[in-house]
Amino acid sequence: MNIKIKNISALVPRGAEDCIKNTDIYISGDSIVSMDETPENFKADKVIDGTDRLAIPGLVNAHTHSYMAFMRNVADDLSFMDWLFGRIDPIEQKMTDEDTYWGASLAIMEMMKSGTTCFNDMQMNIHQTSRAAKESGMRAVISRGLVGNGDDEGGRRRLKEAFEERDAFHDCDRLTFSLGPHAPYTCNEEYLKIVAAKARENHMGIHMHLSESITEIENCKKEYGCSPIALAKRCGLFELPFLAAHCVYADEDDIRILKECNVSVVTNPASNMKLGNGFAPIPAMLKEGINVCIGTDGAASNNSLNLFHEMSLLALIHKGCGRTPQCVSAAEVFRIATINGAKALQLDKKIGTLEVGKKADIALLNLKTPSLWPNNNPLAALSYSANGSEVETVIINGEITMENRRILTMDEERIYFETAKIMERIGG
Amino acid sequence: MNIKIKNISALVPRGAEDCIKNTDIYISGDSIVSMDETPENFKADKVIDGTDRLAIPGLVNAHTHSYMAFMRNVADDLSFMDWLFGRIDPIEQKMTDEDTYWGASLAIMEMMKSGTTCFNDMQMNIHQTSRAAKESGMRAVISRGLVGNGDDEGGRRRLKEAFEERDAFHDCDRLTFSLGPHAPYTCNEEYLKIVAAKARENHMGIHMHLSESITEIENCKKEYGCSPIALAKRCGLFELPFLAAHCVYADEDDIRILKECNVSVVTNPASNMKLGNGFAPIPAMLKEGINVCIGTDGAASNNSLNLFHEMSLLALIHKGCGRTPQCVSAAEVFRIATINGAKALQLDKKIGTLEVGKKADIALLNLKTPSLWPNNNPLAALSYSANGSEVETVIINGEITMENRRILTMDEERIYFETAKIMERIGG
Repeated sequence: MNIKIKNISALVPRGAEDCIKNTDIYISGDSIVSMDETPENFKADKVIDGTDRLAIPGLVNAHTHSYMAFMRNVADDLSFMDWLFGRIDPIEQKMTDEDTYWGASLAIMEMMKSGTTCFNDMQMNIHQTSRAAKESGMRAVISRGLVGNGDDEGGRRRLKEAFEERDAFHDCDRLTFSLGPHAPYTCNEEYLKIVAAKARENHMGIHMHLSESITEIENCKKEYGCSPIALAKRCGLFELPFLAAHCVYADEDDIRILKECNVSVVTNPASNMKLGNGFAPIPAMLKEGINVCIGTDGAASNNSLNLFHEMSLLALIHKGCGRTPQCVSAAEVFRIATINGAKALQLDKKIGTLEVGKKADIALLNLKTPSLWPNNNPLAALSYSANGSEVETVIINGEITMENRRILTMDEERIYFETAKIMERIGG
Repeated sequence: MNIKIKNISALVPRGAEDCIKNTDIYISGDSIVSMDETPENFKADKVIDGTDRLAIPGLVNAHTHSYMAFMRNVADDLSFMDWLFGRIDPIEQKMTDEDTYWGASLAIMEMMKSGTTCFNDMQMNIHQTSRAAKESGMRAVISRGLVGNGDDEGGRRRLKEAFEERDAFHDCDRLTFSLGPHAPYTCNEEYLKIVAAKARENHMGIHMHLSESITEIENCKKEYGCSPIALAKRCGLFELPFLAAHCVYADEDDIRILKECNVSVVTNPASNMKLGNGFAPIPAMLKEGINVCIGTDGAASNNSLNLFHEMSLLALIHKGCGRTPQCVSAAEVFRIATINGAKALQLDKKIGTLEVGKKADIALLNLKTPSLWPNNNPLAALSYSANGSEVETVIINGEITMENRRILTMDEERIYFETAKIMERIGG
């Protein structure tokens, strides 16, 4: 299909920041084939009027657990242990395969409606999430959640499944797969070394929770004599493309290791605050040039999957913490939510910016809304003023998946129906 | 006009928290006249179907500067001085009366679209804001901003204007007026004492910035030998109904004074972070039983006027700061954004809860949106999941001011047109 978006303000890369360009965008098949000039023999099947609209690269949610979407607001204002074992775990125990599918579908619907066009998921039942992503037109990186204590049968089986699912979805070029060793407190050193070896053998990246809570740090130091980040390095995991979720308690030594090993960090401001973990040292990481990206975490600890909310938190909290209004600028936040996420997922050649030759993953925002008006500075508006509902049309891989806020690739009513039914059954 | 909202989930007060009640709401004239049972001889002129909707008391934005709405995103990631003197002040210098009117109108439109039905404003040109509020159907408390150095002509004139404007709008029962001595660094002790005397004489409350920045604290201690909060007490201001904006640097002694003097505190999380001031000690204030409410501050330091955004910040940041996931619960945040704001503005007999006999200030949210679905806990959803765009219909003082997100009482297109034109002229 050929799509022309005419007369649009587009945020395009220029040097270290992004800038507004008034242009036309030409999409053919899955890619942006031209900006400004009409390509030869281009016949638009669809023309979108860009007046009073802003085109941005679709946002990249670099850490989430999509299946949890129907668990939003079931466990709030609780300690981590009460949250996990008192409320979340009992619900998870009752989940079926179909429940996972509908949970992931609700998550994808919410992400699409708030401008996310790619998400990086971690969970134990990846088949259903992959299926939901494939059907919905979404782009996703699916990490098989792994827990294990060495070369045991369960640990081996989980790894095997990761490769099987990757093969099962090889025909969907919007999906890629990685390995998701859950955390240093659910995978022991031996298992982490096995995971590193298997990832290398199978050319897969790693997605892992690291340094999220004080308890994790204390226990890791007690058991292994080093920080979770140092442990991951020791196990050879950092020799692979590695995306570390959280890193709230990364100290100076940890930050040096992350930098040296070219590890990407995904920060999750809402979840880290909500569970009482605190604020990750993002300004220090940015200063070191670490590739920082951003995620929502699961809806059970957020309780939404709206990256615009997360972007505003990121732009604000570190200014508050450090009493430094100049730190973590809106321009930085925008890159963190787009191209940096793409880099972390090894997708930066394909997505993350609006550029000719890249895949057409685009969100169109309606600027004629009170919160974005007047359009004094669209880049600042995205972090400080937008709430996500301004996203009107979404294109992923050249396909219009949402138009005028109606999702074209999913049955919204069915998703509402099924997810409400699930919570009636297992919400307890 | 008689309105019946049928088959609605409503958040109503019950003890220390609020709870969901499935009910019908009957509105006659400006008030809620019944819930559950049809009043005798009630004939509805308008029936609103409440299926999959949530009724909440309209939110109270207890501290803002509405005229600044068109200055959103003109000055970001800057120090306070660069923000104020480099960017904001030069724009303000060029503003006309009409500009103020359109700025306030844009602000009111944004607030209404995100569920706010009452705002507490502070500014120097109150006639235009009062006019915009009156015309739009909004409820407002208008504080005449005051700066002065004793019994000088300017200081006297400003006070006189406050009383004149109150008289000019005496026919609009949605508007009340208060005095807004700007801050301890723009009003000296003599002037503050005059303001206190005049407020007492005229039965008006006080709305004042207090303890917002370190510089303010340091200078106040140098000049007066006490904190800004202690100074306000010394000037007799706390003998009046008093709403203190910010209180970021309130220490233990200050908190004791605030409590003893029954002072209400309005916290502004986004603005305090954005300008690098930090986090107000809200958990300590709540523990002391201080009446805490919430505001957006002006759009130039936020950069939106969306109280749902502010509520989520309030619910999250103190959990992060104190590493205490249990502090500042969603239930507390909801009261802070509704009845506590009403109390601070001496309007709690009229608004702030959905109760028979109160004015009908109601926001109806569409629960069938991905971010609020499933409806596991609407109270938690309001702070953690909602972004404000779920607000579909707004009733203020018994009048439907917004229906299906279209504002009925204001000309949206005209406001977009005029505010864009203003920024072209004076935005520089």
